[in-house]
Amino acid sequence: MTVTYSSKVANATFFGFHRLLFKWRGSIYKLLYREFIVFAVLYTAISLVYRLLLTGAQKRYFEKLSIYCDRYAEQIPVTFVLGFYVTLVVNRWWNQFVNLPWPDRLMFLISSSVHGSDEHGRMLRRTLMRYVNLMSLLIFRSVSTAVYKRFPTMDHVVEAGFITADERKLFDHLKSPHLKYWVPFIWFGNLATKARNEGRIRDSVDLQSLMTEMNRYRSWCSLLFGYDWVGIPLVYTQVVTLAVYTFFFACLIGRQFLDPTKGYPGHDLDLYIPIFTLLQFFFYAGWLKVAEQLINPFGEDDDDFETNWCIDRNLQVSLLAVDEMHMSLPKMKKDIYWD
Amino acid sequence: MTVTYSSKVANATFFGFHRLLFKWRGSIYKLLYREFIVFAVLYTAISLVYRLLLTGAQKRYFEKLSIYCDRYAEQIPVTFVLGFYVTLVVNRWWNQFVNLPWPDRLMFLISSSVHGSDEHGRMLRRTLMRYVNLMSLLIFRSVSTAVYKRFPTMDHVVEAGFITADERKLFDHLKSPHLKYWVPFIWFGNLATKARNEGRIRDSVDLQSLMTEMNRYRSWCSLLFGYDWVGIPLVYTQVVTLAVYTFFFACLIGRQFLDPTKGYPGHDLDLYIPIFTLLQFFFYAGWLKVAEQLINPFGEDDDDFETNWCIDRNLQVSLLAVDEMHMSLPKMKKDIYWD
Amino acid sequence: MTVTYSSKVANATFFGFHRLLFKWRGSIYKLLYREFIVFAVLYTAISLVYRLLLTGAQKRYFEKLSIYCDRYAEQIPVTFVLGFYVTLVVNRWWNQFVNLPWPDRLMFLISSSVHGSDEHGRMLRRTLMRYVNLMSLLIFRSVSTAVYKRFPTMDHVVEAGFITADERKLFDHLKSPHLKYWVPFIWFGNLATKARNEGRIRDSVDLQSLMTEMNRYRSWCSLLFGYDWVGIPLVYTQVVTLAVYTFFFACLIGRQFLDPTKGYPGHDLDLYIPIFTLLQFFFYAGWLKVAEQLINPFGEDDDDFETNWCIDRNLQVSLLAVDEMHMSLPKMKKDIYWD
Amino acid sequence: MTVTYSSKVANATFFGFHRLLFKWRGSIYKLLYREFIVFAVLYTAISLVYRLLLTGAQKRYFEKLSIYCDRYAEQIPVTFVLGFYVTLVVNRWWNQFVNLPWPDRLMFLISSSVHGSDEHGRMLRRTLMRYVNLMSLLIFRSVSTAVYKRFPTMDHVVEAGFITADERKLFDHLKSPHLKYWVPFIWFGNLATKARNEGRIRDSVDLQSLMTEMNRYRSWCSLLFGYDWVGIPLVYTQVVTLAVYTFFFACLIGRQFLDPTKGYPGHDLDLYIPIFTLLQFFFYAGWLKVAEQLINPFGEDDDDFETNWCIDRNLQVSLLAVDEMHMSLPKMKKDIYWD
Amino acid sequence: MTVTYSSKVANATFFGFHRLLFKWRGSIYKLLYREFIVFAVLYTAISLVYRLLLTGAQKRYFEKLSIYCDRYAEQIPVTFVLGFYVTLVVNRWWNQFVNLPWPDRLMFLISSSVHGSDEHGRMLRRTLMRYVNLMSLLIFRSVSTAVYKRFPTMDHVVEAGFITADERKLFDHLKSPHLKYWVPFIWFGNLATKARNEGRIRDSVDLQSLMTEMNRYRSWCSLLFGYDWVGIPLVYTQVVTLAVYTFFFACLIGRQFLDPTKGYPGHDLDLYIPIFTLLQFFFYAGWLKVAEQLINPFGEDDDDFETNWCIDRNLQVSLLAVDEMHMSLPKMKKDIYWD
Repeated sequence: MTVTYSSKVANATFFGFHRLLFKWRGSIYKLLYREFIVFAVLYTAISLVYRLLLTGAQKRYFEKLSIYCDRYAEQIPVTFVLGFYVTLVVNRWWNQFVNLPWPDRLMFLISSSVHGSDEHGRMLRRTLMRYVNLMSLLIFRSVSTAVYKRFPTMDHVVEAGFITADERKLFDHLKSPHLKYWVPFIWFGNLATKARNEGRIRDSVDLQSLMTEMNRYRSWCSLLFGYDWVGIPLVYTQVVTLAVYTFFFACLIGRQFLDPTKGYPGHDLDLYIPIFTLLQFFFYAGWLKVAEQLINPFGEDDDDFETNWCIDRNLQVSLLAVDEMHMSLPKMKKDIYWD
Repeated sequence: MTVTYSSKVANATFFGFHRLLFKWRGSIYKLLYREFIVFAVLYTAISLVYRLLLTGAQKRYFEKLSIYCDRYAEQIPVTFVLGFYVTLVVNRWWNQFVNLPWPDRLMFLISSSVHGSDEHGRMLRRTLMRYVNLMSLLIFRSVSTAVYKRFPTMDHVVEAGFITADERKLFDHLKSPHLKYWVPFIWFGNLATKARNEGRIRDSVDLQSLMTEMNRYRSWCSLLFGYDWVGIPLVYTQVVTLAVYTFFFACLIGRQFLDPTKGYPGHDLDLYIPIFTLLQFFFYAGWLKVAEQLINPFGEDDDDFETNWCIDRNLQVSLLAVDEMHMSLPKMKKDIYWD
Repeated sequence: MTVTYSSKVANATFFGFHRLLFKWRGSIYKLLYREFIVFAVLYTAISLVYRLLLTGAQKRYFEKLSIYCDRYAEQIPVTFVLGFYVTLVVNRWWNQFVNLPWPDRLMFLISSSVHGSDEHGRMLRRTLMRYVNLMSLLIFRSVSTAVYKRFPTMDHVVEAGFITADERKLFDHLKSPHLKYWVPFIWFGNLATKARNEGRIRDSVDLQSLMTEMNRYRSWCSLLFGYDWVGIPLVYTQVVTLAVYTFFFACLIGRQFLDPTKGYPGHDLDLYIPIFTLLQFFFYAGWLKVAEQLINPFGEDDDDFETNWCIDRNLQVSLLAVDEMHMSLPKMKKDIYWD
Repeated sequence: MTVTYSSKVANATFFGFHRLLFKWRGSIYKLLYREFIVFAVLYTAISLVYRLLLTGAQKRYFEKLSIYCDRYAEQIPVTFVLGFYVTLVVNRWWNQFVNLPWPDRLMFLISSSVHGSDEHGRMLRRTLMRYVNLMSLLIFRSVSTAVYKRFPTMDHVVEAGFITADERKLFDHLKSPHLKYWVPFIWFGNLATKARNEGRIRDSVDLQSLMTEMNRYRSWCSLLFGYDWVGIPLVYTQVVTLAVYTFFFACLIGRQFLDPTKGYPGHDLDLYIPIFTLLQFFFYAGWLKVAEQLINPFGEDDDDFETNWCIDRNLQVSLLAVDEMHMSLPKMKKDIYWD
Repeated sequence: MTVTYSSKVANATFFGFHRLLFKWRGSIYKLLYREFIVFAVLYTAISLVYRLLLTGAQKRYFEKLSIYCDRYAEQIPVTFVLGFYVTLVVNRWWNQFVNLPWPDRLMFLISSSVHGSDEHGRMLRRTLMRYVNLMSLLIFRSVSTAVYKRFPTMDHVVEAGFITADERKLFDHLKSPHLKYWVPFIWFGNLATKARNEGRIRDSVDLQSLMTEMNRYRSWCSLLFGYDWVGIPLVYTQVVTLAVYTFFFACLIGRQFLDPTKGYPGHDLDLYIPIFTLLQFFFYAGWLKVAEQLINPFGEDDDDFETNWCIDRNLQVSLLAVDEMHMSLPKMKKDIYWD
């Protein structure tokens, strides 16, 4: 489920963001504590080896190695690589969000353009609406692990009422080596045309308005599919990951506190706990985690889109809108500002 | 209320921006003075402890610690992290602004496409317009703390005349576990269709023009809702906040003036007041404040959108446009350039 | 007036941009020479004080201060802050340019869709066109200081022929505590509908085509208004300005040539004129000037949009197009490639 | 074929991205191992020459050269140039993906708007659909080496059934010195108009809906063509390539381990294997490889778009949709939520 | 003419981009060799003066100056300024490309919506199409030096057959102090309306479809004009140019090889040829050349848009499409996948 904190930051107040630092759900701590422990343990282990096990000559060698590692750790352009990469990931993530298919525009048009309060009219509107929901469900099954878990087979889709047994038979019957998520889309067009022929949809203007909207809906669906299918090139993700991991590997050795009595520059002090290195771990690993969390927003992370909730909401709301609410209107009265 | 200063910078003049430095409302000083005082007090406290309380050996230790902190403070990539983050926040903020729902396009179409100057015609137009305003009000109540304070319950919405008692009953009556801000939207469609059936809207072309526009309005509303619901991932905000706070923490110790007689490099001078560190505090903390202020532009900051004003303006103007101004036209005369 | 130099850089030639360095109008020199003089004078003053007035001990203190300032001047992230900020400003500036309201699309539709070459037909088209121009004029008066100077009161608007005396009376008559720039917009709708009822506009398809276009025009107008109303948050501008000013303040002291005989590192040479610091002043202050000039492109800078020219051009051209040119066509002849 | 790994990163887990480091297909290792070997061999060769062949004086000279190279290697702004360049390439790549022409929107409209289940009706729909597919095929032949290999001549296009022999004759017959990919597009318009005249398309609203969609399809096609025709300016690509290559050339000499006994700063340690330089090679060369792979996504890289697959899918699916599925509808039944 | 190299980089291969380094047309070498020679000559001259002409004391002074210059050369933020600036230029360049006016969408609609194979019908379509081409030609004359050279006067436009003598007379006759590129646009509207009145265009739906498309075409034209009229502010270009030129000026002195025997840090080696400085010249000057080449893509650079070619192609193709191809259709046959 998405972690919403906007109400917490409505106003810029005294150290306004500090309170965000004490959240757990969706927080950097929850995401990173395991990696942090690993890093801390490794750092400590190396530190203990250096302090307790090594002989004098080995210590000198290790000290040289540490200084060498430290120097190169600073050369790794982690900040930049991460900055450009995360910007890319965040843009993709947000585009996926704004292209989530919502049936509201269609239910608005279907409710008002497909006429008839009799059973046939109701069934028409409900069926059109169901096709809309079915198409997005088929897409969500492809892109979202959470939805796939809930609907592992088409039987589950039948059971959930998104497709009837007859429809499923026809669906399975269609011969195509390719994905068939577009089938309900064609059914929608055919059914709408039939409704137009029967006079349930008044004229071509109303019909094309529906068709245009449905095409827009399909584009949302296929764009989601596209984002899933063609991700950020693997090489880019590997480059970034390698950069960050290498940086931390270099830090494990290069940020050890060396014997202050040896007078290495910048090593006058032995604090035992490398507070700034640990903080740097939080920055960089946290930044990478932002990417990890957003690169596929259809998983089950705290911050992923609640796709299953969307599916339920969309079906419930859209059937309500096109059936129970069809031509239902409150009695029109003068408002309080009348004259 | 938004702080508008564009007229102050219309022309690029001699040290053009300097006059902006002396504003208080919405200024960096107003936003930061409390944090600045805390920072200055802490800095002074540490300085006094170092100068007056510590013994010689403790001083030497503190000096080493200070140098260590200073070195790492410079390694924290505050500039970059802030640059990328603030760019993201500013883009989101501006997108929210351009997606604020304004009923002007709809009132234009309703005024000209829904005919009839009799009471029924007037009521039709006013009611359609009210539904439009009601929908955005419901959204604003969700996203804006200021609006929520003004309309804490639906009773306040009824009182303010956005919804009649009858409508509210019907609204409450609808069974849905989900938010119902879309209900006025469906009502709008139903009422427009009714008007079309009664001949108040001439044909499907006029009707679909209205419907399309209403769909656009709904998309604005739902996009605002989306921005509120799915914010910048908490982790990203935490990473940035941690980076800035850590930087200042490191500065508190690392930017102390050390005893010049000890000859630490870069510590030849004891100015008592760390003027550049204080200025840096203003830059970085100010930059972060930009983010804090813009991350939720529906609060009550000096620079937040004046949502309550919008709501009032929209209702007043749109009722005026569709009722009093309906088909009211100045007498057509030849303009002064005629022939 | 906009400074156009694109024809000067049509081809990439030998040191292609160097000729741009010798322009005066709209140039960095014209914008910056005053600040540059102030900076140079202050630098010289400090330099003279240091060289001539200070005693030996004072000189030593000043030298330490200078080194201290120099070190911190380098820490101020001017480049970054400016880079991100100017990118933001430039994007806003360009968006304002592409959203300038041009009536060409509307005059094209009005000329071809509103029929009748008699006086009533001509008056219809001219009046519609006038409303279009009036609306943008009202907006320009709000956002542009240049236009406001030309039309300080509505009387000037009447005089210039954008609104007739009758229209103005009706305009003033409307009760609204809010801006009324949208009034001509509603008039346009009403008049177009009237023309449709009279058969001057053939059908709803033609009418809605006009209405859609008018809505687009209104959106341009309101977007301009939005850019003026909700600027870049004051805090951001202040942060950037502070950073740049502080940087130069630090340079005034930190970039002084210190006595070479004292052997301070990097101070082996006394050139008297700090050529690179002066150049840096040009870069950074020039970059900031870019922002100053573009942050409100409706002022009277050399590079601001020529709003008053636009207003004149739009009225002249649009009346010409919908009146004199209405249904005027050259005799159709075979072109030279016929068969 | 595109390398899809989004399901692998659905959830942010413990060291979530590390598993991506062990993929081969589409990976940085597969792309870079040859360059890496060359780099390692050259490095080793130089190292051996330095250690074994050079005389004492030559060694001293080489050491100076190495330090000189190292110093300048750090001055080359590889990170920045790559960051800006790769961002540009990635944006172009993604825009090409979202502008791939998919016939789904058109098949939806054709299936529902072009009536008649008789042979003539079927042929009409199939032919329209074929023209759509033919146009994108002609474009793909121009931009994609993979498609060109599959369809080296128009004969192959005839054989594959995208164009009939008659059509091809007419196509070849047209006199134009320019590319003729737009011909099927005009045929489409002519055929649709004919269908409208015959009453197979009901009215102008349906027809224009089709035409608009076809125009959109054409724009996708021509945009793809544009991306291929006008690439990132060669100079930019050369600048970036030169920067990266120079950097590595400088590293070959500058990152050699120099004799520790000579006491050059930063050369206290002889590790034989320059682990961090090799890692840097991976970062920077990998980053450049991202650009190389994406700059033309229509080749045969692991991560390129599967254009040939698209062509097959589009033909199969679109003929299925407009013919077999035309007006075929599952029997309408009450859904499980009915009342 | 545009330099297309995308087919050369279709696949990411072994040192994939290296082959781009050996191109001449449109290459960095062709663009930069003159500046490079100047730079090299100046560098050599200074070097010779230093080595041969200066006395000992002068040498010492020059050495100090050189070190001073070198230190400041590194402070000039060339990378950043260039990165931000070039990104801006590249975006503008690409937007100009995608907004080049292509008449294909219009010719598609005209061919199918303007009926009649008789001479009058043909003339109608050809004339409409000519107006379209004429409008873009008028714009291209304003923005492109290449086109202006080809059509220096309106006589050349008449000769080339874009406008007839009669039309030109009417065109010249129109009184307006402003540019008149929009005149063919109004003629188009008038002629289309006349065709509608004569029944050559069937109904308002077809007509408005044409009008909308023509409006889109006009927007492309005016956007191109806008890009030419309102360029990147001169100040910004000057700031960038100054930064780069200053940097190279500082390098001329600061990157000289100083006498190694004097022991200046980083000056242990005299290589005579400053290989890395020359490479840096290529990077930075090349990067600036990217901007120079793209800032006005309508010149005659190797990489500029081939506007004259476009004009010819558009006229030839569009007349072909609306005349010869009007309602010409291949005989419809069953495709090879039929049943």
